[in-house]
Amino acid sequence: MRWLRFRQGENEYTAYLDGEFARAVTGDIYSGRWHDTGRTFHLAEVEFLTPCRPGKIICVGLNYRDHAAEFKMEVPAQPVLFLKPPSSLLPHGGAIVYPDGVRRLDYEAELAVVIGKKARHVSGEQAREVVFGYTCANDITARDLQKIDQQWTRAKSFDTFCPLGPWIATGLDDSDLPVSLLLNGEIRQSSRTAQLAFDVPFLVSFISSVMTLEPGDVILTGTPSGVGPLQKGDTVTVSIGGIGELSNTVI
Amino acid sequence: MRWLRFRQGENEYTAYLDGEFARAVTGDIYSGRWHDTGRTFHLAEVEFLTPCRPGKIICVGLNYRDHAAEFKMEVPAQPVLFLKPPSSLLPHGGAIVYPDGVRRLDYEAELAVVIGKKARHVSGEQAREVVFGYTCANDITARDLQKIDQQWTRAKSFDTFCPLGPWIATGLDDSDLPVSLLLNGEIRQSSRTAQLAFDVPFLVSFISSVMTLEPGDVILTGTPSGVGPLQKGDTVTVSIGGIGELSNTVI
Repeated sequence: MRWLRFRQGENEYTAYLDGEFARAVTGDIYSGRWHDTGRTFHLAEVEFLTPCRPGKIICVGLNYRDHAAEFKMEVPAQPVLFLKPPSSLLPHGGAIVYPDGVRRLDYEAELAVVIGKKARHVSGEQAREVVFGYTCANDITARDLQKIDQQWTRAKSFDTFCPLGPWIATGLDDSDLPVSLLLNGEIRQSSRTAQLAFDVPFLVSFISSVMTLEPGDVILTGTPSGVGPLQKGDTVTVSIGGIGELSNTVI
Repeated sequence: MRWLRFRQGENEYTAYLDGEFARAVTGDIYSGRWHDTGRTFHLAEVEFLTPCRPGKIICVGLNYRDHAAEFKMEVPAQPVLFLKPPSSLLPHGGAIVYPDGVRRLDYEAELAVVIGKKARHVSGEQAREVVFGYTCANDITARDLQKIDQQWTRAKSFDTFCPLGPWIATGLDDSDLPVSLLLNGEIRQSSRTAQLAFDVPFLVSFISSVMTLEPGDVILTGTPSGVGPLQKGDTVTVSIGGIGELSNTVI
């Protein structure tokens, strides 16, 4: 299934996709305790929201071998984690705001994992049981600030720096999904999740050895090679096979 | 006033201190729209919760000149930010869990600023208008993992690594508060907020230039010199003049 959240008028809805329509539900999609409201909306009429409201967004650095190589760095022996604040979230169709004073803003296409169950100390074998589904993310990064600070947080935490969506796809096999990024329609990143240095089950297990994961929390799994700069006016699209396309403009 | 949250039985309460008693309120303390319920609880009878439920916890590294010096680092030209996840929060009286595999766990006493109003791009002059109050924090850090990862996130993000409390003090002048840390009753850190490289108004303004701050969000302002290791069985207490004492044990 594909789960989305959207606004129409003053109301917010959780819904699942049915062709070109969104069927609104009530209840808790993570526990499976939801039911149809009978209301349907044409996708063309809705304003997308981020498909979940994570309490935390945990990100993994340098997790594709080709991306580490383009920065002349080695894949670390263990995943390197950082966090993006919930205030950085941006839905499909929203505008990425180029901050004043930033000199280089980069896109980074990433597979995002949405957690479905509270999880602590889960093994790699159990990891997929706590995954609800998958969506697309763009880990927008002020590359100049990242170099100045050395800590990556500020460079990756501005409002609008975490496009996420358009929806959560469930029931996918995450082991070999194609991940690509289009800048104004031209392909700039193209890889597959089979190239991840640390795969999804390993990441979920590793992160749950540090912190308690909650339903709706999001893990950004890292970006492949081909990262590059954005300019005001650009349209940037993250496309992941089996999920869909997350498009945003830069203002 | 001093605002706290606590649990008694199955219920959670927000309350203000009145001598040895907590007077429960309903409503929103950040907007000032609250009123007394008439229920009072003796402090000895309650189980403390963290005094707020931050959507994000923004931390500042190397913000006391003496602490930067003890790590043979310079105070940066701009504040270096990192985030701790909400899952790392621990109330006054709670137990800090020493993680398996960590070889050195450090305490770090810090003044925590609690945001009271939604804030973006506030000036230094306006900054105190968006501050609700102040509490004590302990930025628990797995020093060995911090060195391995270089990014500080994992080392500072384990469950229980953000003791916060015991309550939020409002109406304080934050410019010269004494900040100290006691390990099993012995003073290990002792400084004053006048020694901050970047003071509270500057930090609030700077952080709000990056991200939208929300009521209940917390800023940890950095730790002075004297950081050192914790062992299982230790009792560690952060004491800040005008606020109170935040005590936790290590298990």
